[in-house]
Formats: sequence, C-alpha cells, structure tokens
Amino acid sequence: MKPDHIRIGIAQECYSEDIATNRRKNIAAIENLAAEGARLIVLPELHDSLYFCQTEDVDNFDLAVDLPGDFTDTYGDAAASAKAVVVASSFERRAPGLYHNTAVVFDSDGSVAGTYRKMHIPDDPGFYEKFHFAPGDLGFEPIDTSIGRLGVLVCWDQWYPEAARIMALRGAEMLIYPTAIGWNPDDDRDERKRQREAWITIQRAHAVANGIPVVSVNRTGFEEDPSGQTSGIDFWGSSFVAGPQGEILLGAPEEKFAEEVVDVSLTRSEEVRRWWPFFRDRRIDAYSPILKRFDYK
Amino acid sequence: MKPDHIRIGIAQECYSEDIATNRRKNIAAIENLAAEGARLIVLPELHDSLYFCQTEDVDNFDLAVDLPGDFTDTYGDAAASAKAVVVASSFERRAPGLYHNTAVVFDSDGSVAGTYRKMHIPDDPGFYEKFHFAPGDLGFEPIDTSIGRLGVLVCWDQWYPEAARIMALRGAEMLIYPTAIGWNPDDDRDERKRQREAWITIQRAHAVANGIPVVSVNRTGFEEDPSGQTSGIDFWGSSFVAGPQGEILLGAPEEKFAEEVVDVSLTRSEEVRRWWPFFRDRRIDAYSPILKRFDYK
Repeated sequence: MKPDHIRIGIAQECYSEDIATNRRKNIAAIENLAAEGARLIVLPELHDSLYFCQTEDVDNFDLAVDLPGDFTDTYGDAAASAKAVVVASSFERRAPGLYHNTAVVFDSDGSVAGTYRKMHIPDDPGFYEKFHFAPGDLGFEPIDTSIGRLGVLVCWDQWYPEAARIMALRGAEMLIYPTAIGWNPDDDRDERKRQREAWITIQRAHAVANGIPVVSVNRTGFEEDPSGQTSGIDFWGSSFVAGPQGEILLGAPEEKFAEEVVDVSLTRSEEVRRWWPFFRDRRIDAYSPILKRFDYK
Repeated sequence: MKPDHIRIGIAQECYSEDIATNRRKNIAAIENLAAEGARLIVLPELHDSLYFCQTEDVDNFDLAVDLPGDFTDTYGDAAASAKAVVVASSFERRAPGLYHNTAVVFDSDGSVAGTYRKMHIPDDPGFYEKFHFAPGDLGFEPIDTSIGRLGVLVCWDQWYPEAARIMALRGAEMLIYPTAIGWNPDDDRDERKRQREAWITIQRAHAVANGIPVVSVNRTGFEEDPSGQTSGIDFWGSSFVAGPQGEILLGAPEEKFAEEVVDVSLTRSEEVRRWWPFFRDRRIDAYSPILKRFDYK
C-alpha cells in the first residue's frame, strides 16, 4: 500500500570555495535529515561550489563533472546510506565546450533514477549562466523514483508556469526546485521584499495551478563577486515546501542554514484536484499562442 | 505623451435579486470612483443580478441580455458620463439556447471597445456554469482602449496561467478579472483561508510571470441557494490590485462593499521586464505538451 505521506528534508546551506568541504557538508546534511526520517532530501542548486556564475571566466569550467563519475558515486553512496531519494545538482561536463546545469535524482538504493538539464537559462549581471550552461535538451520529463514521479526543475525554471504545467501533465506528483537566488546587496529593503515575495508567490502558484506540492531549496549566505564588478550576491534562503493549494507547510529562514523536515500528504492532491478540477477545463484548442515568442498584432 | 500612471477604481459590491437596484448601485459606483479620479473602473462578474448559477433552472435564461442592447446602452452611458474606461460583465444571450458569460469593455466615450467571452467554464455544486454558459469562442484576445491594451479575463480563467500568458504575449498591458468567488459556509476556517490565499496567490503570480499589473474584482455578501441543496455562497470580496512584481497595491476587505482607487504605474512594467526578462528565455521549442489534455507515459 502506498503510504499516505512522505517526510521531506531540505538542506539550505551556505558554501565555500572548497569543494571537499562542501561535499562533506552536503553528505552530513543528508545523514542528518535521514536520521530525522526524511525519505526525500533536496539540496540547493550547484551545491558543490560557490555560485561561480558571478563572472565569465573560462577557468570555471574546471569545476564541471562527468556524469556518471565521482559526483554520482559520492551522492549515490550518500543516498544509499540514507536510504532516501536525493535530489542533487551538478555542473555537468558533457563534452569540451558543452556544459549543462543538471539535476541528478538518486533513488534510495543509490542508483541514478534520472537527470534533468535546466531548460531556461538566465543571464543577468552576476548571473552569467548563458556563458556557462547550454540550454537543456532533455525537455520537461518527470523522473520516476521509488517514492513517486518527481517533476524536478532548476532555479530560473521556477518563473515559467509552462514548465510546471508540462511536468504535471506528464504525471509529476510533486515539483522540486533546487535554487540559487539572492539579492543584490545594493537593492533597498522594499525591492528585496518584492523580489523574495515574487519568488515564493510564483512557486506557490505552480502548486495551486497543478494541485501538487512544491519543494524549493535555496542556498544562503553572502558570496563575493570575484571580479569586484558588483557587490556580490546575498542568497536569501527562504527554502519552503507548499501543499497542493499553495499553502506553506515549511518555511526556512532567510539568513542562516536550515536542515528541516516536514510531512507532506500523498493523498491530498487527489482531494484538491477533485474540488478544483482545473485539468478538466483547460482550453487546449486555444493555447497554441503559447508556442510563439510573442504574438502582437 | 503617455501618462506615467493610471488611477484604477474597483467596485466590490453585494447584490440583490432586483436588477434595477443592482444597476443603480453599479452606476453610482462608477460615478463615485470617477469622482475620485479613476480612469479605469472594474465591476465584479455578473453584476446585474444575484449569482444565478447556484441552480440549474431554465428560467435563469430570462436574465440574459442581447449585446448590443439595453445593457450596453446603460453602461456605455455610465462610462461616457464618468469619462472612464469601464469593464462590465454580462450574461449574453447570443441565440436561443446559446448563452455566454461575457465581459464588455466600454471606452471612456461610452463606445464598446471590445468583448471577451469567458473561455474556461467551471462546474461545481453551487457553481453550475456549464449549464448556463457555452465556452467562449473569441479566444484570448486583449482589448484596445484609450488607456491601453487590456487583457480581460473572467473568474475561473484566473486559475489558468495559459490564459494570462497568451494575453501578455498579445501585448496586454494589464490583466483584469471580474470575479464571483466565495466560500461554502460549511467549510472550516483553515479551508477558507487556503482557498482565499490560493486565489490571491495565483493571480499575483500571473503578474509576476508576465511583468504586468493584475486587477481582480470580486463581489461580496452572502447569497442563498434558492434550491436549498447547499448552504449558499459567502462571496469573499478581497478584490485587489497587484503591480508587475505581484506586489499588492490595493487590497479590499473580505466582508463588506468597497469602492476604492489606486494609482498604478504604466512605466514600471518596462523596468521590471528588463530586470526579469522571462520572455527572452521561454523554451517555445519545448512547450507543445501544453496543447495536450494530459501527457502521461
């Protein structure tokens, strides 16, 4: 019988430039959360290093990893020891000059259940991701695991209702977003508040629109811009888990590390979708403009 | 020169079974809001009557109106007197046995700027809309007015990110939702809170995803179920205006009528979309599953 809930653990960490230290931190987090009963554990985006996209430096590509390889060995072992599904995030070296921002999902036996290559790639001052990552070419495909079908997306994807919808149409029972998002320290308090709230709001809305839980895990802490061109990034933490009506089930703080667990119902989506049967009434006959870049007449 | 802001007025009203009284109330609201400087005034959904969809009664079709006709004369005159753009909501009689839930937008000279026939039609106990309304066949087309291009949608549409996105892709500078949504009085406080928050959250998210303001106007007050089968509907008011980061600019109360105005920037969208250029990075090559009912493999 399928259990009626799952305990989810989130690892909101701050990272240093030392990869070995970061890995030890992540493995300890997986152990700690598993000890608290977590059967699904989610790490932030690009958790093995500092957020290196603050500068366009070709040496950054030294940080990329082969998949499978040392990265999958390390986190596969951690998942197997923890007997938990682990959502990890890698800088994938696919070929010389071809890199991706790739989430790797480990099943609770340590095997790779599947990967997702970030589809929407941002590019802003301090977030030079188009330089580092080729856009994903695996599409929006949920990943089957022993605890269910997971709609794993990454950071910038979170702003796109299309990505969430397609995962749900393909049977995802939950949306999961490893993330690295923060403030420009030069922004004022009101602007910071608007940005953080917008980020939470749109992800809660993906839960509402699709009637499934959302898990979003961000890093925290300040990271300097090595080039000195900007004031760096103040990662805003605020990782959260929302239920299928968008209700907040767990909310982590902004400014400090947080390893927390929460029980999420696996039967509530069925109820919520019966009350709010949005999928029944979609006007698929009229949605084709979604496939256009713009449609101004 | 285009002004840098517009004053928007919302008319959150409760209605009776007397149509003449409801019309007088709406016309007075338009006058009041215009006197406070509103240049765009939005009324709730189906504002000329009680929310008649609580029962499937063929006599309800007597409430439907021809467009153009007395309805457009009445509200066109009101818009012209107020020198304001007015978003009104009608029960359109298109042919015998063919009715729509149709928003009518009047320009500030009283002319009809355009109409929108509700595309997503709900059907729940107490909200028997599929009985009353044929699904709209005009698509998601914004309406050009003297104050800008308006993405007018209606109530149940608010749960569909696709509708908001298509309006924005077609150049809508603002999303507007006349609404009639309320609680089942039998639901407990937590469920009520989840529902109201989900409703606000998903509409704020449409603002975030598309970088444009959202105006949502709901009715308020309790309306009995004439059939006695349910406990009626407690319309939850809570009309609001959000800016292009989803920030709340105006929030009306839950339980009482509210005629309020707020100034909304017309230049802020340009700024916000430069910071968060979501339209640049959409993966239109990978969105075709949106056109499917479901896509489970």
